[in-house]
Amino acid sequence: MPRFRLDIEYDGGPYAGWQRQAGQPSVQAAIEQAVEKFSGETISLRGAGRTDAGVHATGQVAHVDLGRDWRPDTVRDALNAHLSQAGERVAIVGVSAVPDDFDARFSALARHYLYRISNRRAPPALEKDKVWWVPKPLDAAAMHEAAQGLLGRHDFTTFRSTQCQANSPLRTLDRLDVIRDGDLIEVRASARSFLHNQVRSMVGSLKRVGEGAWRAADLKAALDARDRAACGQVAPPDGLFLTKVDY
Amino acid sequence: MPRFRLDIEYDGGPYAGWQRQAGQPSVQAAIEQAVEKFSGETISLRGAGRTDAGVHATGQVAHVDLGRDWRPDTVRDALNAHLSQAGERVAIVGVSAVPDDFDARFSALARHYLYRISNRRAPPALEKDKVWWVPKPLDAAAMHEAAQGLLGRHDFTTFRSTQCQANSPLRTLDRLDVIRDGDLIEVRASARSFLHNQVRSMVGSLKRVGEGAWRAADLKAALDARDRAACGQVAPPDGLFLTKVDY
Repeated sequence: MPRFRLDIEYDGGPYAGWQRQAGQPSVQAAIEQAVEKFSGETISLRGAGRTDAGVHATGQVAHVDLGRDWRPDTVRDALNAHLSQAGERVAIVGVSAVPDDFDARFSALARHYLYRISNRRAPPALEKDKVWWVPKPLDAAAMHEAAQGLLGRHDFTTFRSTQCQANSPLRTLDRLDVIRDGDLIEVRASARSFLHNQVRSMVGSLKRVGEGAWRAADLKAALDARDRAACGQVAPPDGLFLTKVDY
Repeated sequence: MPRFRLDIEYDGGPYAGWQRQAGQPSVQAAIEQAVEKFSGETISLRGAGRTDAGVHATGQVAHVDLGRDWRPDTVRDALNAHLSQAGERVAIVGVSAVPDDFDARFSALARHYLYRISNRRAPPALEKDKVWWVPKPLDAAAMHEAAQGLLGRHDFTTFRSTQCQANSPLRTLDRLDVIRDGDLIEVRASARSFLHNQVRSMVGSLKRVGEGAWRAADLKAALDARDRAACGQVAPPDGLFLTKVDY
């Protein structure tokens, strides 16, 4: 059966997350239903990253096998038409034909996330649910410096949800940049894969550094503790975007 | 009475526009009600630009006279608290004390607008109601070149709503840049003041140039016609943002 890669954008706000769950709206189910309306096939979509409730994506990737050798642009336009009609906040930005051994989840070489913090006294009016609003001034340079201590291969148990189902807490963090642009602080994180809640846990702990409650050494000590209780606040999902998956 | 300048951000989506209207939600009324809750005063807010229904702002400016010499930060935080509590999509980004002769509308030296077009096949999932979705490819370079023909002092009757209440159709357009950034096309317009619907009328006509239906000479001919019927489509409000007012 011909395999297709879908490049996907979504507003995570209305969804219980990427993954299909009984009785709850999910991004996966929304696309699977659009496929069913398009080709009549009941399929199971495999995504690169199982984003949580409220987490957004500009560059989620999934693959699907279809019964016919459709033109990729036809698949894209038809799925978007069905998604729009259903009122979903999901768009298929691109579709391409891929070899049978392409697996959106297991072929991924790197995942890139962006976390956005609105750091100003006024609440966000235009970007509500698309940023984490932190009214207290944060020192982004200190956050960036401390973040560098998390790079490399570590046991990230501290920054892992207790519900994480990964076999190992070991991950290799390739990038964790904190950049201020006016009132906006952007955290960019890259790794081959992340643990459940890892980015939000790291950002929540970096916020402690930014507000002066922690120093870089405290962040490193939290990592070394390999203890979930050592983690700072877990940042809310609103500010998190899966931006890109490398293959 | 002490006068205060308010710098305002809002999501125009839920509002019938900036201006107070009986029986309809407006940005002006939302802020006036917040002021009343804060100080007990029934005031009338004067804004720099009377944005239409669905038009957004990151840099609207208004002024208000209050009975007491409040600390500006107190005014800002209190108004934001009342706006948030009322579920408004309006934020007061900054408040400053200004001289009695400061008038948000009449002291303005220039107004800056941004118009955003999402130019891709897939509909916008994350920025719904914050861009104009134009799936057909647009030639942004041709749009920019044609736009330069509108610069300077002209009778903009063609690009003016028939409901425009300005005494004169003469305006001086200082900037009309069209810049592509990936799938996004940004139009940046600056003038001392604009006629009603002027930016959206110009953008709608520039779209005709972008899709190849018009050449630069056609846009100039539309301007020279001084006839509303010569205008191309009026672009929808979703993509328009009042970004800055100069004083």
